Amino acid sequence: MTAPAMTADDIDRFLAVEFPQARGWTRIAAIRHDELDLELPFSADNLRPGGTLSGPTLMTLADTAMFYLLLSRLGPVALAVTTSLAINFLRRPPPAALLATARLLKLGTRLAVGEVHIRSGEGGVLVAQASVTYALPPARA
Amino acid sequence: MTAPAMTADDIDRFLAVEFPQARGWTRIAAIRHDELDLELPFSADNLRPGGTLSGPTLMTLADTAMFYLLLSRLGPVALAVTTSLAINFLRRPPPAALLATARLLKLGTRLAVGEVHIRSGEGGVLVAQASVTYALPPARA
Amino acid sequence: MTAPAMTADDIDRFLAVEFPQARGWTRIAAIRHDELDLELPFSADNLRPGGTLSGPTLMTLADTAMFYLLLSRLGPVALAVTTSLAINFLRRPPPAALLATARLLKLGTRLAVGEVHIRSGEGGVLVAQASVTYALPPARA
Amino acid sequence: MTAPAMTADDIDRFLAVEFPQARGWTRIAAIRHDELDLELPFSADNLRPGGTLSGPTLMTLADTAMFYLLLSRLGPVALAVTTSLAINFLRRPPPAALLATARLLKLGTRLAVGEVHIRSGEGGVLVAQASVTYALPPARA
Repeated sequence: MTAPAMTADDIDRFLAVEFPQARGWTRIAAIRHDELDLELPFSADNLRPGGTLSGPTLMTLADTAMFYLLLSRLGPVALAVTTSLAINFLRRPPPAALLATARLLKLGTRLAVGEVHIRSGEGGVLVAQASVTYALPPARA
Repeated sequence: MTAPAMTADDIDRFLAVEFPQARGWTRIAAIRHDELDLELPFSADNLRPGGTLSGPTLMTLADTAMFYLLLSRLGPVALAVTTSLAINFLRRPPPAALLATARLLKLGTRLAVGEVHIRSGEGGVLVAQASVTYALPPARA
Repeated sequence: MTAPAMTADDIDRFLAVEFPQARGWTRIAAIRHDELDLELPFSADNLRPGGTLSGPTLMTLADTAMFYLLLSRLGPVALAVTTSLAINFLRRPPPAALLATARLLKLGTRLAVGEVHIRSGEGGVLVAQASVTYALPPARA
Repeated sequence: MTAPAMTADDIDRFLAVEFPQARGWTRIAAIRHDELDLELPFSADNLRPGGTLSGPTLMTLADTAMFYLLLSRLGPVALAVTTSLAINFLRRPPPAALLATARLLKLGTRLAVGEVHIRSGEGGVLVAQASVTYALPPARA
């Protein structure tokens, strides 16, 4: 395994410049060759009626985990954009931290596809499964 | 066509009690029998690198439009939950207001399925298409 | 509206050469600028337990309708390939003919996205909704 | 781990009665507690232009693998029906056998969700990833 193109610290500095709203929302817990673990601390802001975490919170987490995984593999490709996302909500996530694991299924010249599993911090129960496709900018080296 | 089970004002009052974080983020522009138009005013908070509106903003808007459409048809079903969402991002949305139109495809006893088209306020260009499935609580009348 | 790049007869001749297994399975009922109607006659081969048409039959019909729509717009692009498909099965299709309407949502240089509605020949009830993405070959004129 | 509710032989006998068209198309290679491996032998009938296996072949295989996995867990639920399927085609599958592995992500009282990875028999390369949702009949014990 080669070193990642960007480490967790590199991605944090990249976000500070390119995407300040996203910075600090999550924490990269681990980067492996084809995988990235992203933690979302609990916040009452993310609750919906019924006291569970909202669907948009989980969708945003899935998309973010895949974006950071691409950064870790390709370096600073700010203009990579999501082309599609399909998510299944499996269980109501209790009010607790979440851990998303994004795994790269394909890294082509034009498209990258990954799948994301989101577990609740309480007991590690699987609460959502997603697949995410990004279009990669044509000019990358 | 029968009157909606909840009007835009009813839904606003429901949100004030059940889901205050969501209140005021969007504005219901129209309710028809099987459709609902939901407007998201422009906010710089929703931008991502490259100056376009972020994917999570569009996903949240699609999910919200379908939720309000269900409220308008079924009344206050706070516990209806999204079971799956699949979205295609078609064009980069410029920094402008968005208009989502949710349309009901199926309203069963256990599942409701809708499709959502999101257009940019600038020229009405289609920027995303989604399908959203909600599980309905067993006890509804 | 301009003439289609390929008519229903052109597509039939193309299939005879490039894709003989697919020929004759369906019938193109209409081609409009951004839409194509594709009819699948009833066949007992397409039934599944319970006497309804099978999911794979509907998925194949959705994918085929989008492929023919692309042919009608772009001409003979045999190497266009599906990159993703998401389908919702809305109602059990009775043993009858089906009519799929594919509509183009985006025709980019690299990706084309469409949505497909499938109705039962009996009464025109909507039985499935799909979105289909094709990757287009780089060399097309 | 408990014994499966139906073995590969049980499922074959079930198909002989309930779904004869499906019988013999694939071969169940293994059943584990939450997973099932399903092999599709190579057939020239499944080719599309360009000499690769067709998308509908892969979609049908994904749906079938999930159906058999449910049979292995729940017993003979002929009336379980697919409610949605989302598939990503990752690489063009060469003309060879395929191996699908379906894994159960959720088995609720009303819905079951699984993900399916399809690999080419030549080298085990991942060629498609799918998620499949089935609605379960209300009356099951």
